[in-house]
Amino acid sequence: MDNEKSSMEKVNKFRDDRDWRQFHNEKDLAISISLEASELLELFQWKSAEEVKEFNLGRIKEELADVLIYSHMLADNLNLNIDSIIDEKLKKNNKKYPVSKSKGNNNKYTDFE
Amino acid sequence: MDNEKSSMEKVNKFRDDRDWRQFHNEKDLAISISLEASELLELFQWKSAEEVKEFNLGRIKEELADVLIYSHMLADNLNLNIDSIIDEKLKKNNKKYPVSKSKGNNNKYTDFE
Amino acid sequence: MDNEKSSMEKVNKFRDDRDWRQFHNEKDLAISISLEASELLELFQWKSAEEVKEFNLGRIKEELADVLIYSHMLADNLNLNIDSIIDEKLKKNNKKYPVSKSKGNNNKYTDFE
Amino acid sequence: MDNEKSSMEKVNKFRDDRDWRQFHNEKDLAISISLEASELLELFQWKSAEEVKEFNLGRIKEELADVLIYSHMLADNLNLNIDSIIDEKLKKNNKKYPVSKSKGNNNKYTDFE
Repeated sequence: MDNEKSSMEKVNKFRDDRDWRQFHNEKDLAISISLEASELLELFQWKSAEEVKEFNLGRIKEELADVLIYSHMLADNLNLNIDSIIDEKLKKNNKKYPVSKSKGNNNKYTDFE
Repeated sequence: MDNEKSSMEKVNKFRDDRDWRQFHNEKDLAISISLEASELLELFQWKSAEEVKEFNLGRIKEELADVLIYSHMLADNLNLNIDSIIDEKLKKNNKKYPVSKSKGNNNKYTDFE
Repeated sequence: MDNEKSSMEKVNKFRDDRDWRQFHNEKDLAISISLEASELLELFQWKSAEEVKEFNLGRIKEELADVLIYSHMLADNLNLNIDSIIDEKLKKNNKKYPVSKSKGNNNKYTDFE
Repeated sequence: MDNEKSSMEKVNKFRDDRDWRQFHNEKDLAISISLEASELLELFQWKSAEEVKEFNLGRIKEELADVLIYSHMLADNLNLNIDSIIDEKLKKNNKKYPVSKSKGNNNKYTDFE
């Protein structure tokens, strides 16, 4: 696979090669992201974080990749640029959680939405 | 904010500026991804995909960005490269769903995990 | 199985027969409820509600039962009575959504948390 | 509220008093169960199970009740009896996890789906 393509270009090629875009309404893609996030979370259940990292890194990679792949598909359907929406949200969080008040502050953090 | 930085560098700067990495065990980050995916999904509930796009694009951007931001944090905690794990998973899916068998094929698609 | 036992008694017997209560911390039980809810939701994905009912009622029964079984386990761990917490929440919702204002009212409904 | 009514009768009365059944297609109800399960899970995030029980029992009651209320609504839409589907699933699990093999057995448990 061509490594000079961006992740978005690769995801788009994958589904366009299969003509799958016709099945991808945004509501079901949002369900997909949620389901893949659950499959990722399942790997951490009944275990400490340390146990998971030691034994399940291969599965974590795959499930996290699925979350990201469906997120790219939803973003593309809505003409959203992944890097731009991350940048905008971080700027908004930056105002909401100024470094001066939130540095090392666990209480503040637990209110982080 | 510096636009030449990658999304990962920006996410890392955001949490390192606040010393928040100490709170971010991977199990709770996996919970975060799942919770943000639910907040995203909530925007699509009781509506058709069309209604959501028309009225809620601003909120969709933010919730999708949250999914992505926590995904970057978990990836960084585990020393995973976002683009690499996407590329590897697409290659795996490519074998599982060969174009010749899966093109325009809805049945195939519904088995897509 | 004894049909005069309540669902809670049956769920308790199931896990106590296996000595599984020792593994059931409440945080992981809450994760279980969320994961089972996702498995239930997965049955409805890429389909209309009608298609699901026609083809998947057997699976829906099982996944909905799993949501309920883990909900009973978490309730029992916390000494909560299932019928009482439902009754209390309906009373609270009753005040929040008075019949006079919310009857047949879709707008109101979409704000229902 | 009449305490001799079953939980199902109370849930049905609540939504029928408001004529809300018309909005409740099963796919969106399944989404509701998943979203409420996430709100419940959120209470346990960034905390140990002990911290949650001490400080958040009131909120846990409400979110667990919401999971149960939507589960009742979905069951009623599909003409399912809550106690029967729990009983059937426990019988199936009973065969899958015989007491002789699964008693006190954590490994077995982690494969519990």
